[in-house]
Amino acid sequence: MPFALPAYNEPDFAALSGAPLARFEAVITPGVAPDGYHATTIFPEYFQLAPQRWIMPAQSRMDCVVVRRGDELDVVEFRRLAPGDMVCVGRRENGEDGIYVHTDPFGSIENAREKFAFRTRMTRESSFSIDYDELYDLLEFERENGFIVWVLGPAVIFDHDSREALTRLVEAGYVHGLLAGNALATHDLEAAMHSTALGQEIYTRRTAALGHYHHLDALNEVRRLGSMRAAMEHGLVKNGVMRAIHERNIPFVLAGSIRDDGPMPEVVADCYKAQDAMRNVVRQATTVMAMATQLHSIATGNMTPSYTVTGGSIRPVYFYSVDMSEFVVDKLANRGSLSARSILTNVQDFLVTTERGLRKRQH
Amino acid sequence: MPFALPAYNEPDFAALSGAPLARFEAVITPGVAPDGYHATTIFPEYFQLAPQRWIMPAQSRMDCVVVRRGDELDVVEFRRLAPGDMVCVGRRENGEDGIYVHTDPFGSIENAREKFAFRTRMTRESSFSIDYDELYDLLEFERENGFIVWVLGPAVIFDHDSREALTRLVEAGYVHGLLAGNALATHDLEAAMHSTALGQEIYTRRTAALGHYHHLDALNEVRRLGSMRAAMEHGLVKNGVMRAIHERNIPFVLAGSIRDDGPMPEVVADCYKAQDAMRNVVRQATTVMAMATQLHSIATGNMTPSYTVTGGSIRPVYFYSVDMSEFVVDKLANRGSLSARSILTNVQDFLVTTERGLRKRQH
Amino acid sequence: MPFALPAYNEPDFAALSGAPLARFEAVITPGVAPDGYHATTIFPEYFQLAPQRWIMPAQSRMDCVVVRRGDELDVVEFRRLAPGDMVCVGRRENGEDGIYVHTDPFGSIENAREKFAFRTRMTRESSFSIDYDELYDLLEFERENGFIVWVLGPAVIFDHDSREALTRLVEAGYVHGLLAGNALATHDLEAAMHSTALGQEIYTRRTAALGHYHHLDALNEVRRLGSMRAAMEHGLVKNGVMRAIHERNIPFVLAGSIRDDGPMPEVVADCYKAQDAMRNVVRQATTVMAMATQLHSIATGNMTPSYTVTGGSIRPVYFYSVDMSEFVVDKLANRGSLSARSILTNVQDFLVTTERGLRKRQH
Amino acid sequence: MPFALPAYNEPDFAALSGAPLARFEAVITPGVAPDGYHATTIFPEYFQLAPQRWIMPAQSRMDCVVVRRGDELDVVEFRRLAPGDMVCVGRRENGEDGIYVHTDPFGSIENAREKFAFRTRMTRESSFSIDYDELYDLLEFERENGFIVWVLGPAVIFDHDSREALTRLVEAGYVHGLLAGNALATHDLEAAMHSTALGQEIYTRRTAALGHYHHLDALNEVRRLGSMRAAMEHGLVKNGVMRAIHERNIPFVLAGSIRDDGPMPEVVADCYKAQDAMRNVVRQATTVMAMATQLHSIATGNMTPSYTVTGGSIRPVYFYSVDMSEFVVDKLANRGSLSARSILTNVQDFLVTTERGLRKRQH
Repeated sequence: MPFALPAYNEPDFAALSGAPLARFEAVITPGVAPDGYHATTIFPEYFQLAPQRWIMPAQSRMDCVVVRRGDELDVVEFRRLAPGDMVCVGRRENGEDGIYVHTDPFGSIENAREKFAFRTRMTRESSFSIDYDELYDLLEFERENGFIVWVLGPAVIFDHDSREALTRLVEAGYVHGLLAGNALATHDLEAAMHSTALGQEIYTRRTAALGHYHHLDALNEVRRLGSMRAAMEHGLVKNGVMRAIHERNIPFVLAGSIRDDGPMPEVVADCYKAQDAMRNVVRQATTVMAMATQLHSIATGNMTPSYTVTGGSIRPVYFYSVDMSEFVVDKLANRGSLSARSILTNVQDFLVTTERGLRKRQH
Repeated sequence: MPFALPAYNEPDFAALSGAPLARFEAVITPGVAPDGYHATTIFPEYFQLAPQRWIMPAQSRMDCVVVRRGDELDVVEFRRLAPGDMVCVGRRENGEDGIYVHTDPFGSIENAREKFAFRTRMTRESSFSIDYDELYDLLEFERENGFIVWVLGPAVIFDHDSREALTRLVEAGYVHGLLAGNALATHDLEAAMHSTALGQEIYTRRTAALGHYHHLDALNEVRRLGSMRAAMEHGLVKNGVMRAIHERNIPFVLAGSIRDDGPMPEVVADCYKAQDAMRNVVRQATTVMAMATQLHSIATGNMTPSYTVTGGSIRPVYFYSVDMSEFVVDKLANRGSLSARSILTNVQDFLVTTERGLRKRQH
Repeated sequence: MPFALPAYNEPDFAALSGAPLARFEAVITPGVAPDGYHATTIFPEYFQLAPQRWIMPAQSRMDCVVVRRGDELDVVEFRRLAPGDMVCVGRRENGEDGIYVHTDPFGSIENAREKFAFRTRMTRESSFSIDYDELYDLLEFERENGFIVWVLGPAVIFDHDSREALTRLVEAGYVHGLLAGNALATHDLEAAMHSTALGQEIYTRRTAALGHYHHLDALNEVRRLGSMRAAMEHGLVKNGVMRAIHERNIPFVLAGSIRDDGPMPEVVADCYKAQDAMRNVVRQATTVMAMATQLHSIATGNMTPSYTVTGGSIRPVYFYSVDMSEFVVDKLANRGSLSARSILTNVQDFLVTTERGLRKRQH
Repeated sequence: MPFALPAYNEPDFAALSGAPLARFEAVITPGVAPDGYHATTIFPEYFQLAPQRWIMPAQSRMDCVVVRRGDELDVVEFRRLAPGDMVCVGRRENGEDGIYVHTDPFGSIENAREKFAFRTRMTRESSFSIDYDELYDLLEFERENGFIVWVLGPAVIFDHDSREALTRLVEAGYVHGLLAGNALATHDLEAAMHSTALGQEIYTRRTAALGHYHHLDALNEVRRLGSMRAAMEHGLVKNGVMRAIHERNIPFVLAGSIRDDGPMPEVVADCYKAQDAMRNVVRQATTVMAMATQLHSIATGNMTPSYTVTGGSIRPVYFYSVDMSEFVVDKLANRGSLSARSILTNVQDFLVTTERGLRKRQH
């Protein structure tokens, strides 16, 4: 059945009629909030800026502070605070400080079933049939109406079929942003150049002679040419995820890490600049698909609110995490939000199954 | 490409020309082997019964003893030894005791690739594309020419789609024997009667009202009628794995365990009788598919030799284990045999993907 | 601080004054309950047998039925039902059917802290310091005043130090019952006879020559002598857990399984007889320590109520599960009972640390 | 028994007498190696710079290139290559290209036992008694004679007892360098200031009121004061690991990551500068203890050679990884080096046990 967005429940502002105005204090030291600052959550939050005028920041994320810029509110990382920024102070969330955190924005009766399902803790023995079916509905909807961000660990391209499935998902329009690290790009280009990942053939699993040089050679070659795009233009990269991403000019961020060789020229070395770049992609996100990377998944989860404002209306941001380990997905799913969902399986199977399921729908 | 059985390498008996005859000593105490007994492996083993006459038991399994019955050799569990049984003694395996253990029976040059692949330790990040493709080839071959035994934990039927996929695999002829426990049958019938497993709907994941009674009710109902077949004849079981198994008269063993409620009438309460019944099914096996059960998988692994004799020729027995945990599959795969292969994923995805892959081949 | 048992909250029977008497119906078919039977939980349950007379079975377990024997109530497995047994029927648990399930029997204000702590889901990153300290308090108390049942997988004796720690715990009086399988006893005696487990030395980790024969030799030797006790009397078993158990005449059950070699003569082959024998030990339990065995831990968990009656008063039964995997301990801990607690670690470290912690207390 | 360093086996250079001189080619593009560059391993490697003169770089690491600086050899990351740098080219490792990779530098007969033990793949069921004992020997030796680098995930300070054990290890002189991320420092200072980690008390596991503000408050406070040392001087940090590190002026690197809040002022934002800083600590390392962090452990593993030169002689660098997951430790242990060892357990228990074991030795 076609996917339908749940309606947004406006808070009952009448019930908050006695609340004071939200208070704001100035930043003195760069990167340091005033005492008693209010920290954001993943939920829609409202700040009473004038009597009866409750304003919500359009683009939030958790564990940040709220800076007033005239009549608008900006959700800002501590490190980006500048002297003079007016930061909201107050830690009570039910209006007493002029702040209202709206923890049940989409919890209508119609969503009771989902609500229940989402609250169930998932294990490898949970039934995931319905998740696949609902995911197909969602992704079809989002392809036309949303913005799907994929957060990917390198394991998604260590396998021939899942690398191909992911490439097709890009080509079919299901990928609007990509967040990953140097390893994803490196091994994807290694696969394009040498048919291997870390020296092992991605289909036959044969270890190639001198295969341990392959990823270093791929990196060295791209570094010589100056960019992945240049390598593609030189004909060195005939297939794969990064090629499909480049061909469609899909925004991507490769965040650097202390594990990196190379790195690829496009990698962002400063992790806070990388964080900013990632958040710029996530600001547009309506669905996030995070898989096979604890670091990037949690980093993205931290900067993804449970809602977004598109075309003037408020809708949920869906967040899927796919991993083999209950430990990892629990870290992500445990956000108290209807919109976080976990699937416990090997990402290889997940990608192949999902791409096939979506393709079948098109026919 | 169609599957081809590897050829069997006969041992070089000429090189063993100076070897003594194998020695046999009589059992005195029931269930107790004579000192110095030879314990079997998963490999073909030859015993020199008369000069130049090296005899191999047709149906072996590891950690048992070899009993001579005239010119034939029987591989027997210690607990089945009877006074007077003549048990082979000797622990050297290269002929010095008249015993030759043939550890590389199918290792021809043609199998070099596979040999390599099989030796690689599998993790969740290994590439499994080729395993699926080779498995489809294998299962198509075995459907016509072999005997495929499935060893199943209850998780395979906790999910709607994987229960359906498994049912279809039975219906399509890919299941020739089934080894499981009480829980598999119980929750499969619970699903048929109530659409739930342990009270949770297997598609919607909704918790049914009084759902914790469902599996007890299913057990009680079948126990009242006397058998699962009777319940089917009464129209209580309209779908599922056990129904498909019964319709095709596929041999199955449900081994009892200390965790069981009920149990189903067909469950074998004595674990050693269950072991014997399982081995009787395994004696015919040419491929074993073990998934989502550590207990039954290891039990079956212990009684499955790496080879079997069919139609007078010797061929490998393939053994697949599918599980989420490296720890579990390593226990099974670490047998030093080319024919053991691990796939790390959720069995739900594995079954759905495998059934779809095989179905596609038929068209 | 010394351990203190929480007080039992009597149900408010006055509030149930309008409730009907509990109804009982006769069993017709052996092993089959009447329709609408009431199934037990882990909680104290009361049945109104006469007006104002609410009777609780002294020894319950979950997923069984309640049989009236005069003025007493027996909690009985379905398979043990005999024709004529009067089984309680009714599925409403708040008195409407004359049945009251008391789900918060020890939830006094004083236990608020614990209550909270127990409800927190444990992962490998949870803080366990307090659990060790509280466990020392508990085990010291139970050594004098309770009955501690240990449920053990073979991994506890694969390591030299943990096998020694466990032996000391037996010797120091912290073990009053032992539930395990054939493998625990086999590898414990293998360690006593050969210093190995599955052929690998338990301290040096060296693989012994022909070490794969060690466990089979240990089994064969004990089977020849007829019992583990006989082997001990013959001087074959100079140390270890089973020796300490025998020296103190501690009740134990070794439940057979389809994985077993041998087995040891003491192993119970029929899994339902084993279940009965285990429950007979568990009936006395005030604390259960389950570790490194999914099968035995869950089996024991199923037959362990959350309370027991000792000396006329009602107290909790504490249930600890120790394992490396969130997946396993979640299965056990998720019982809705204050008295279930999980520790995620390697049982080797757990046993060594616990024995040392308790020993230090004695000085 | 006291720890003794294994002797270094000099390669048999006489056997390499016909080998050519190593070749070097100039870097043209910054950060790009010439084609055919030789990539380093974790092993000692020798380069024939003049006839019969085989030179080994003193400080190596894997997946880098070798740059000749006069008569010395520097092992350099690709990204640090400058135009004109002379990079060794040649990929054959047995002398044919003037390059000799010495893969068995400490494999004397005396080490046969260890050699065996190290090759055994570790699982949660491996026996670890000997590892603890050998580790105590090693750490006692290294405290006086070596340089012990600890690589730590935040889980080590989520638990009261393990945080205390780790602090004591610093105080007792067993920690000479610390590599971690922002989270370790943040939650260690949160614990010092609020007795919580992520808002949960690290001993009682109680959730503190507004506890989710604690780590943000700790970060904000330190950022206001400008450094952790300043916070210590202001009396805000009365205990913990970072305080002990600062008191002893132990070198540490906190590498930034995209998951960070804050961050602490000392965090290195550029991941390649962080990598350089980490390697500067690792250059001195004789033993590395990596625990509960996949990212930092693998990053450190990549930059840690299997040997080091101290006082003119060549000795192994020992590398321990401690984690709950076979998947993680296998990634690290699978380096083909005698000196990598895995322990599968909860780091909390590991730290408490190790500190107690070492303390006991001192008495």
